[in-house]
Amino acid sequence: MSYFRDNIERMSGYIPGEQPKDGIYIKLNTNENPYPPSPNVLTALRKVINPSLRLYPEPLADGLRRAAAEVYGVKSENILAGNGSDEILSILLRSFVGAKDRVAFPVPTYSLYETLVAIQEGELVRIDYPADFTIPAQLYSQSAALTFLCNPNSPSGTLVPLPDIERLARALTGILVVDEAYIDFALNEAASAIPLIHRVPNLVVLRTFSKSFSLAGMRIGLAFACEKLIAGMMKVKDSYNLNRLSLIAATAALQDLPWMKRNVRRIQRSRAQLAGSLKELGYDVYPSQANFVMAQVKGWNQKRMYEALKARNIFVRYFDSAGLQDSLRISIGQPREMKTLLQEMALIRNDPAR
Amino acid sequence: MSYFRDNIERMSGYIPGEQPKDGIYIKLNTNENPYPPSPNVLTALRKVINPSLRLYPEPLADGLRRAAAEVYGVKSENILAGNGSDEILSILLRSFVGAKDRVAFPVPTYSLYETLVAIQEGELVRIDYPADFTIPAQLYSQSAALTFLCNPNSPSGTLVPLPDIERLARALTGILVVDEAYIDFALNEAASAIPLIHRVPNLVVLRTFSKSFSLAGMRIGLAFACEKLIAGMMKVKDSYNLNRLSLIAATAALQDLPWMKRNVRRIQRSRAQLAGSLKELGYDVYPSQANFVMAQVKGWNQKRMYEALKARNIFVRYFDSAGLQDSLRISIGQPREMKTLLQEMALIRNDPAR
Repeated sequence: MSYFRDNIERMSGYIPGEQPKDGIYIKLNTNENPYPPSPNVLTALRKVINPSLRLYPEPLADGLRRAAAEVYGVKSENILAGNGSDEILSILLRSFVGAKDRVAFPVPTYSLYETLVAIQEGELVRIDYPADFTIPAQLYSQSAALTFLCNPNSPSGTLVPLPDIERLARALTGILVVDEAYIDFALNEAASAIPLIHRVPNLVVLRTFSKSFSLAGMRIGLAFACEKLIAGMMKVKDSYNLNRLSLIAATAALQDLPWMKRNVRRIQRSRAQLAGSLKELGYDVYPSQANFVMAQVKGWNQKRMYEALKARNIFVRYFDSAGLQDSLRISIGQPREMKTLLQEMALIRNDPAR
Repeated sequence: MSYFRDNIERMSGYIPGEQPKDGIYIKLNTNENPYPPSPNVLTALRKVINPSLRLYPEPLADGLRRAAAEVYGVKSENILAGNGSDEILSILLRSFVGAKDRVAFPVPTYSLYETLVAIQEGELVRIDYPADFTIPAQLYSQSAALTFLCNPNSPSGTLVPLPDIERLARALTGILVVDEAYIDFALNEAASAIPLIHRVPNLVVLRTFSKSFSLAGMRIGLAFACEKLIAGMMKVKDSYNLNRLSLIAATAALQDLPWMKRNVRRIQRSRAQLAGSLKELGYDVYPSQANFVMAQVKGWNQKRMYEALKARNIFVRYFDSAGLQDSLRISIGQPREMKTLLQEMALIRNDPAR
């Protein structure tokens, strides 16, 4: 006998990428930014390490939302701030998905969506991406309460163009969530769906500070949508879901966009170089618009490559699930990390013992 | 037509106490600690304001859980860390309560419980406390999936003795959650239900760093339970639910218990003095074991007192709901704040215009 709900008892939890703790390693498995956050963020944080920590934070993150409204050309009322975009994903499920309601998304994608559907007792609708990672035609007609589109997608890194997203949103009867965790790394600076929220009432766009802003450790995400959707989602979020320091860090990060953009350009350059080198090693590489690449050798299970790299203190992401076992997802690190990675991969590939 | 679930569309959100932003005010409305956190916390935080913020935090809060295990005499496997105990309350609802499952608690109490039941589509079972705020007899037999007991209770400040809690837990068929947000302020240092988790398999005990540890701004809570319950709840929590700085702050706070206990003793002394003075002003004051008191004048609506105090920049908590309108909940501030409060209350009471 279990005290848990049946769906919770049955499910497995989401397994995050490994977080090695000490020692010297190259960490390319959870798409963190290899460059530090803006020095302005660190300065702003140091100023508020004081007795005010005894007081509750702003419940609605007003200061951060004002700063974000200015940067993204929307109103504060179009924004909800979350404890990472992961928390916003939970809020979305709890806002829009009742038991047995359908939640659809193309796969492979961010596997947390599936975990959250299981927690909420929704009905999972997984639609395979076509080989070119465009929006699958079946996604338009699933009568889902909630549809997720990770754009750029993880683990493929591929980007769906904006007109396709608008067409999808208008065809759906439920909510479309475009998860733009990686969009700052796209070469096309007009790829974001945020401007669509003003004319598409069932669209929610997610952003995170964990990737382009180098603040994975602070857990900050934003949701953008029409005022009505944001107001309803506010009822579901915890009152004080963001601590005082994360609010300060996010606001300061938004006030130094040039820093973020400089890091993005470095990562874009490294990405192009890494893709080229991986192809020389015999890998197929998807055209990535994110801060990682997916490298594949059709029919060659990459588990041994993953393990051999790990034995050399290089962590990349291997997904032990159908259709992904011949691929590795590799975060873009600093140039010297990419160089070491490629050297080791070449050695491992040429090792006759494999 | 709404995209939201019916239960979300219908419900109102939880309304937190006011968080005035600037200016000079006396804030006695959300039970924050009037004294700052340990200087060790601030020192520890300053050390980690560095580029490591680009990396994800420990997903399972291992360091914090080890420190807490030592302090509370349990194993790490008995502990889950949350983004405030509010997040843990959400995790509890999502772990144990399916649609239409019953959630019972004595009232008046922390009103967030009711909000969370509405979000989860549970069936709300509110049982009135008797006048002495002991456990209501009907609470034993509600066949609830989840039962909440806030101990000490808010807003009454009253404490239920440990043997009664064990009796309740053993009688229930579902989970009993004892929310000990305020327990460090109890005069009886052996009042906590944490030691019971080793022999009561359906008990979850909650703690927060927002009150006795003066860290409301950092959002940290802990759940204590048998290993099996904690393991299941881990599946429901977000992977990276606590940011790097909150983890550091909580760990450092646990390593300076004498600081917390000194502040608790000051608050206990002020509480006794405030209760005495409020009685002189004609209020009934419940015997509080928390960092606030509930002061009541039967039949006299306290809304005007609340508003008159607010006009003087003194914030106390007034609950505009049946049975609570003749009461005010007043957090224990510093002695000079208590003095000002009492002076102003006396003036307002004697104002012939009221």
